[in-house]
Amino acid sequence: MTATRIQGLVAAPFTPMHADGRIHTERIHEIVQTLISNGIKGMFVCGSTGEGPSMTTAERMETAAAFIRAADKKLKVFVHVGHNSLQEAQQLAAHAQEHGADFISATLPTYFKIQTIQGLIDSLATIAAGAPKLPLFYYNIPALTGISLDMVAFLEQAAGKLPTLAGIKYTAPFIHDFQACMHASEGRYELLYGTDEMLLSALATGSHGFIGSTYNFAAPLYNDLIQAFADGQLQKAQQCQLRSVEMVRLIVKYGGLRAQKAMMHMIGLDCGNVRLPLQPFEENEYISMEKDLRAIGFFDWCTRVTKP
Amino acid sequence: MTATRIQGLVAAPFTPMHADGRIHTERIHEIVQTLISNGIKGMFVCGSTGEGPSMTTAERMETAAAFIRAADKKLKVFVHVGHNSLQEAQQLAAHAQEHGADFISATLPTYFKIQTIQGLIDSLATIAAGAPKLPLFYYNIPALTGISLDMVAFLEQAAGKLPTLAGIKYTAPFIHDFQACMHASEGRYELLYGTDEMLLSALATGSHGFIGSTYNFAAPLYNDLIQAFADGQLQKAQQCQLRSVEMVRLIVKYGGLRAQKAMMHMIGLDCGNVRLPLQPFEENEYISMEKDLRAIGFFDWCTRVTKP
Amino acid sequence: MTATRIQGLVAAPFTPMHADGRIHTERIHEIVQTLISNGIKGMFVCGSTGEGPSMTTAERMETAAAFIRAADKKLKVFVHVGHNSLQEAQQLAAHAQEHGADFISATLPTYFKIQTIQGLIDSLATIAAGAPKLPLFYYNIPALTGISLDMVAFLEQAAGKLPTLAGIKYTAPFIHDFQACMHASEGRYELLYGTDEMLLSALATGSHGFIGSTYNFAAPLYNDLIQAFADGQLQKAQQCQLRSVEMVRLIVKYGGLRAQKAMMHMIGLDCGNVRLPLQPFEENEYISMEKDLRAIGFFDWCTRVTKP
Amino acid sequence: MTATRIQGLVAAPFTPMHADGRIHTERIHEIVQTLISNGIKGMFVCGSTGEGPSMTTAERMETAAAFIRAADKKLKVFVHVGHNSLQEAQQLAAHAQEHGADFISATLPTYFKIQTIQGLIDSLATIAAGAPKLPLFYYNIPALTGISLDMVAFLEQAAGKLPTLAGIKYTAPFIHDFQACMHASEGRYELLYGTDEMLLSALATGSHGFIGSTYNFAAPLYNDLIQAFADGQLQKAQQCQLRSVEMVRLIVKYGGLRAQKAMMHMIGLDCGNVRLPLQPFEENEYISMEKDLRAIGFFDWCTRVTKP
Repeated sequence: MTATRIQGLVAAPFTPMHADGRIHTERIHEIVQTLISNGIKGMFVCGSTGEGPSMTTAERMETAAAFIRAADKKLKVFVHVGHNSLQEAQQLAAHAQEHGADFISATLPTYFKIQTIQGLIDSLATIAAGAPKLPLFYYNIPALTGISLDMVAFLEQAAGKLPTLAGIKYTAPFIHDFQACMHASEGRYELLYGTDEMLLSALATGSHGFIGSTYNFAAPLYNDLIQAFADGQLQKAQQCQLRSVEMVRLIVKYGGLRAQKAMMHMIGLDCGNVRLPLQPFEENEYISMEKDLRAIGFFDWCTRVTKP
Repeated sequence: MTATRIQGLVAAPFTPMHADGRIHTERIHEIVQTLISNGIKGMFVCGSTGEGPSMTTAERMETAAAFIRAADKKLKVFVHVGHNSLQEAQQLAAHAQEHGADFISATLPTYFKIQTIQGLIDSLATIAAGAPKLPLFYYNIPALTGISLDMVAFLEQAAGKLPTLAGIKYTAPFIHDFQACMHASEGRYELLYGTDEMLLSALATGSHGFIGSTYNFAAPLYNDLIQAFADGQLQKAQQCQLRSVEMVRLIVKYGGLRAQKAMMHMIGLDCGNVRLPLQPFEENEYISMEKDLRAIGFFDWCTRVTKP
Repeated sequence: MTATRIQGLVAAPFTPMHADGRIHTERIHEIVQTLISNGIKGMFVCGSTGEGPSMTTAERMETAAAFIRAADKKLKVFVHVGHNSLQEAQQLAAHAQEHGADFISATLPTYFKIQTIQGLIDSLATIAAGAPKLPLFYYNIPALTGISLDMVAFLEQAAGKLPTLAGIKYTAPFIHDFQACMHASEGRYELLYGTDEMLLSALATGSHGFIGSTYNFAAPLYNDLIQAFADGQLQKAQQCQLRSVEMVRLIVKYGGLRAQKAMMHMIGLDCGNVRLPLQPFEENEYISMEKDLRAIGFFDWCTRVTKP
Repeated sequence: MTATRIQGLVAAPFTPMHADGRIHTERIHEIVQTLISNGIKGMFVCGSTGEGPSMTTAERMETAAAFIRAADKKLKVFVHVGHNSLQEAQQLAAHAQEHGADFISATLPTYFKIQTIQGLIDSLATIAAGAPKLPLFYYNIPALTGISLDMVAFLEQAAGKLPTLAGIKYTAPFIHDFQACMHASEGRYELLYGTDEMLLSALATGSHGFIGSTYNFAAPLYNDLIQAFADGQLQKAQQCQLRSVEMVRLIVKYGGLRAQKAMMHMIGLDCGNVRLPLQPFEENEYISMEKDLRAIGFFDWCTRVTKP
């Protein structure tokens, strides 16, 4: 199954939450409008950034449906359905198909970890059975899952066995492997790169589509980067990437995903705090991080919020 | 909250499954009767051995309820409620309490991993809120979860904050740490040891309760070990442990948990095959492993099945 | 080659150093006398505790020779000869044999790590060629070397191929594996256990010889432990082990090996500071750690120094 | 200290060895001539590729001196002096300076691993004291050393403390971090990239110098890549990189460094086999790998050997 090739940025939106932890569904429309008006081409819903694994199945279904409705066909929607239980993942896949998602994507279980490519294929087949009409992207993110298999060999072996496999959301710094994957099985699979702070490296090796969390709040920076590279303005592209690198260093300093969700508040599109087991962001951290972000000029090139 | 001290073996039963993967609820009665008649004192349901993380929430609830019913107060029942979503874990905890479990136990999420003891305490508090009347055992199993925090510091800090915390199911070879935990907070917490092939080491340092998977099919061996140690027959205890070590080496050779579930078939109490993402056991492996087990005398000291 | 079985404690002495980093050879006699008078049966020289890997080959030779001389056949001497260059290790082995060591022992290179048991055997054969008359102990310490091979399989395969192999210095918490090794190849190999804070666990499974760093400054405690266990006084043995566990927790708190070397100063047998890349112990740490050690009663059961 | 900026490829030559393991010093001249005639700008001697850690100190000195002589100022020579003993490393550094090396470079000890940036700086200072006139490159290769510190913070903190520090040989896929390092401390440090199969990614972010092992046998391919990128021929650059990626996949398939040394024989410049603890390449592997290399066209774009 060939997916329409994604050109440009796919944001992995945060799941907006109330102070008491409930999903803040009403906020989703504004999130989606902001993504559209900032030139984003797609959304990856209920993934790592969306805290999908921390949500109940009911919440994931409700959230995915709300994002799909809000997208209203103006953005491609990937629904992440990975779950420790492949049967729950299958149900999430079925729900995504029923509600009009464009793609499904899944990590594999992180409690019992598959050890072989055959296990990866069989497990993905179980998930895919829930959404036989939707192209499937395997979500390869070894740093979070601890699963580190040869992706080239996977694409070669999957060819006849996973009819809905469309490609890989590839989140790792191994550009050489990413590049090999783009050419595996005669290039039939679509590779979407997921390490935002290395977007330029992926661009240079021929990548065209990118899924990431920082596209939620720094889309203009990355669109400038992509445009500069296309125009042969390499130095400008490097400057954009360097800003991204500095921003990501701050994100790491403040604890990663928890800090990124807090940044949505700083750009004026509050998505609430993260849910446990992620450590909630604290009051004084907002102040300190905003100061650090101001020092690197973040608010000059961050996403502009579209008010309803 | 002080739990009644567990003396002896708690088995972590396999969840019996049909060939098509559905839970084989009818088989549960026989499993429980066999445990009782082999001197087992408790059950740890829907844990790693029970493939809890691979089951849907509905299946976990159904299975836990069936085991509790079958136990009929003749065995203590621990229900494992760990889940990547702490809210789902809380619901599982509430269900366990409602259906008469004696204890709950939980691993923490394996996708987003807590990094601090405070995060561990807060996350356990979320789960415990679902079952305020049940003593809670934190399930510490770093090799599977990748979470490796200082358990002594945890017990010291948890004292005022987690009123239902009863102790730790401790599955790791770090007996020194296990021993320190037994004495932390003036010995108020109950430590249950979970590395079967090192039971004798835990006994020597003062442990009295043991939770494990191999007690499903080799209970007589371990009961002999415990009795021999109590009687001062150290050499006999060592021989029993050595048999266990040899058995576990075979289990590792054949792939761990998948092989253990297959051993239930070999002792005459078929529990079906494992579910993906674990790799199903294959026909020829049954033959080969049974031969290897025979060579170490396994069928002379294995669990005797109680036919209904 | 069967080694004389070691019964009791082998200390891994610190290499005494001057403030400027030079080896303080004159201090070695006092160190050895103290070990002897505290009931120590052997020494493991220039190992991890002795900072062997941080020393030059010339310093290692000089130090080993000095310890052998000071031992004067009253203590068995193991010389650790492991080195990233197997050729240097071979030269160290030859030197040890020439100067009258009783045994050699070696870790394998930590830069390029062997991946197979065949590689382990071949590499040890290279080292052994330097000291064909000395029994060789493979030094298995995965936490420091990152090399984690199946030790049972190693002993089985080594039998015909490494004529001088006498056994393993086994420093890891995997007592089950340690126990299996004691019985591998019909029990022909000698297993010496190296995790001091789990000595009781090893005793319980049948171990008789122990190599460790804390035997330098807490020998009376461990000798009491071993005696109590032999006398069937299990609770007393557990109390001794618990003290050891508390002491090791303090050692870990203060940075491990660097703190242990500082403890020699605290018991009155100054060995100087550690050498880089270990982080030297600082003035205020001496004060703080001594206070912590006093609080657990360390100075009541620590090694008594024999003044010359 | 500012080093002359390296533009282009620095090869890390293999140390040629006889069948019995002795250094084949006579072969060094031919190796160096071949590098020069293939457009290589420098050599990184006795590093990982040169099996420096497996050699004795005497052999390392002899080998480094021979490469410096053969280079005859036509190539810049980096001598790798990293050693588990910082004192031996210091002696190697002194020797390198005395014999006319252009730069020294060092990994830090892999047995006792530094944990802090302060420890890194202090340890490098110890080494640098041996060669106060030579610019020093820290050799950052976490996959081999297990040392993973923040390189940006290191460069910022090192500024006033390590006067001879010239930069980092950076061998890791983290291009974002590499890019940040190029700009740390106002860009005063020189960053040399060391993951050959990601050279294009480093080029895109502004890198100008590259140190690697595959430049020994595939220099024309990489020089074409660099030229194509400079000429704005991105697709051609990508094709070159893809060939490199395919070649490296074969190298990994055949065991890494051991296979690379074997490839020198295949291009007609035999360097002998690797030394233990690396696993020597076997006869049948030469045949099989040569066939695989032929299938990807390796012999069309490999290094041309300059016969004396």
